Amino acid sequence: MTEVISKKIADYMKKGSWIRRMFEEGDQLKAKFGKDNVFDFSLGNPMGEPPETFKNAIREALDDPTPGQHGYMPNAGYPHVRARLAEVLSRDHGVALKGSDLIMTVGAAGAMNVALKALLNPGETVIIFAPYFVEYVFYADNAGGQARVVETDARFNLDAAALEAAMDSSVRALIINTPNNPTGRVYSEATLKEVGRLVDRKAREYGHPIYILSDEPYKRIAYDVEPPSLFHISKNTLVCTSYSKELVIPGERLGYIAVNPECEHKATLLNAMTFCNRILGFVNAPALMQRALYLDPDDRVSIDGYRRNRELFLNELTGMGYEIVPPEGAFYLFPKSPVPDEVAFVDELKKENILVVPGRGFGRAGYFRISYCVTPQIIERSLPGFKRAIDRVK
Amino acid sequence: MTEVISKKIADYMKKGSWIRRMFEEGDQLKAKFGKDNVFDFSLGNPMGEPPETFKNAIREALDDPTPGQHGYMPNAGYPHVRARLAEVLSRDHGVALKGSDLIMTVGAAGAMNVALKALLNPGETVIIFAPYFVEYVFYADNAGGQARVVETDARFNLDAAALEAAMDSSVRALIINTPNNPTGRVYSEATLKEVGRLVDRKAREYGHPIYILSDEPYKRIAYDVEPPSLFHISKNTLVCTSYSKELVIPGERLGYIAVNPECEHKATLLNAMTFCNRILGFVNAPALMQRALYLDPDDRVSIDGYRRNRELFLNELTGMGYEIVPPEGAFYLFPKSPVPDEVAFVDELKKENILVVPGRGFGRAGYFRISYCVTPQIIERSLPGFKRAIDRVK
Repeated sequence: MTEVISKKIADYMKKGSWIRRMFEEGDQLKAKFGKDNVFDFSLGNPMGEPPETFKNAIREALDDPTPGQHGYMPNAGYPHVRARLAEVLSRDHGVALKGSDLIMTVGAAGAMNVALKALLNPGETVIIFAPYFVEYVFYADNAGGQARVVETDARFNLDAAALEAAMDSSVRALIINTPNNPTGRVYSEATLKEVGRLVDRKAREYGHPIYILSDEPYKRIAYDVEPPSLFHISKNTLVCTSYSKELVIPGERLGYIAVNPECEHKATLLNAMTFCNRILGFVNAPALMQRALYLDPDDRVSIDGYRRNRELFLNELTGMGYEIVPPEGAFYLFPKSPVPDEVAFVDELKKENILVVPGRGFGRAGYFRISYCVTPQIIERSLPGFKRAIDRVK
Repeated sequence: MTEVISKKIADYMKKGSWIRRMFEEGDQLKAKFGKDNVFDFSLGNPMGEPPETFKNAIREALDDPTPGQHGYMPNAGYPHVRARLAEVLSRDHGVALKGSDLIMTVGAAGAMNVALKALLNPGETVIIFAPYFVEYVFYADNAGGQARVVETDARFNLDAAALEAAMDSSVRALIINTPNNPTGRVYSEATLKEVGRLVDRKAREYGHPIYILSDEPYKRIAYDVEPPSLFHISKNTLVCTSYSKELVIPGERLGYIAVNPECEHKATLLNAMTFCNRILGFVNAPALMQRALYLDPDDRVSIDGYRRNRELFLNELTGMGYEIVPPEGAFYLFPKSPVPDEVAFVDELKKENILVVPGRGFGRAGYFRISYCVTPQIIERSLPGFKRAIDRVK
């Protein structure tokens, strides 16, 4: 091929995204067998609809006669929205955040790109934990740095020894995602505090701060556990997250960065991230969505449907012989593949018109991800296929 | 200072943005003298309000009972929105665009970052024309490339000879901004065609395509001239633009990339840009805004207010002895500074509580930018100050 596009991008695209690949194969299956006869567990598109109060908040914002409401605002977002959100987050996290500690962003993806761009020099390192959301690798690269993968243990818990072995002075940031995509694991407070102590110790050793970016869009989607606040594991924690899941608005691109009030070099960092929000082309989080948030920041969708799906799927699949570490949050199962090559098993499931994502798409082969953002009926109807597939290979 | 943030970002911030600096000094002046006694011509925040039909389109979209309307859609945007927009653009540009030739983006800034990320290899070059919108320099750098500045002539017209002298095989793209910020210049069809021929000839010589990115948010803000479509100057033109100005929604972050239907390697490029929309963290243009656009894509705000402001300001300032190339579009004047050091003259204006931006903020010293997105009353009341300032230095 003639050199048309960036070599790096061409290479990335060739390696491709497993989620995207499954999505496309799903479309082909649906065209062939009919939409109702394909069981698509590949996408993490949250269930349900935004709360009606949220939609009403948008309607109210639209009716507000104050001029200039769709215009530019400070790149960090509306001061009154940030002040209101700071109150909510102070309560939720047990810290004393001010509006000036927050930057409104274009989703969690925007938040993380902004934070990494502000932090990284060429070739510097961002630690990520496998299994991981594959986009992290791109985000580190976008900022001129690189992701370094640290394995979690067999139950997908953080492993402080593995982390320590991976640390060196090029590390500027870690990304911690709890509740985790794809495993559903909620890291325990004890584990997180151990990680926090280790990171702070290494930062002192290297003579520069190491920031912990907490990607926590599933924070309010947890079952029987309360995800600990990462603000309490290191003063250098930045919450980089999104309203996509809790308000069911992933298409609207609304998130924020909240900087620990005790963070080192806080003002410098906030200024740099606000600047990066601008120069990366995000400029600001969508205006109307910010204002809707101000009007009703604490009304969230129910997780009852996810809870029922999780129970149903977990019980049924475990009964068939699938090995699954029970997820404590998010809306995914991450079963072990009954055969070592999970891509082969994903193909077995495909014969049953069942779509899931191979674990290697998340940096852990031998597993696969099921997203249960579907109706219970779809789960029920898919079960015989899951049974036949495991029976064929066992 | 301890090394906290990226050295490059720290350096960028130190150099700073003149627009931002004026904005901050303006805030100080306003605090001191009262908001009504400061004449702020520093910001290009478009005048007026979005058309009521646009707001109604948002209301209708909110009332649409179809499930999942705030969820993920393809990264390129809603197919039905792109199809509708393709019809409008086909009419406006006199080309036959399909929906699949379009990618919805987070504003023009998102569009350009996506296009450059898809195109540039490390160190490759993007040509920009001075005076220019300063963010272009960052956008080229974000993608690992670099901006190379080509001067326009004394009347701010493109200069094909200067462009030819600046070309080499590292050039992958040009950014052309017409109507221009900060000069208001609308490039003529003849000049643009000369540039198009030159670029296509150089592309053949170098053996790879060179793409023209048309940043045209002011396309519908033109006085007595019709800005030519850049699709007709090269088959390798990508319109990368925004609805910020014509719908008065700069805070909502809605734009698009439209690829010339005849573009070389069109499918490869569109795939790569859609991928980059995802990995850069934009993911997709805000869902609700896309849908509002679908419902009423052709209703735009009136430019009568801008036209009146332009006449008033241009006549009055010219009468006082300011030298100004009459702008044909956008909402800026770019007068020559009456003294060679325009920063010194900007300070003279500041003594009159008048805020404008020095030309060096746009890569051309010796001039300054006036944004006339204000009421005629503010212009009227500022005139004695403009008079006193020029009289003091003449």
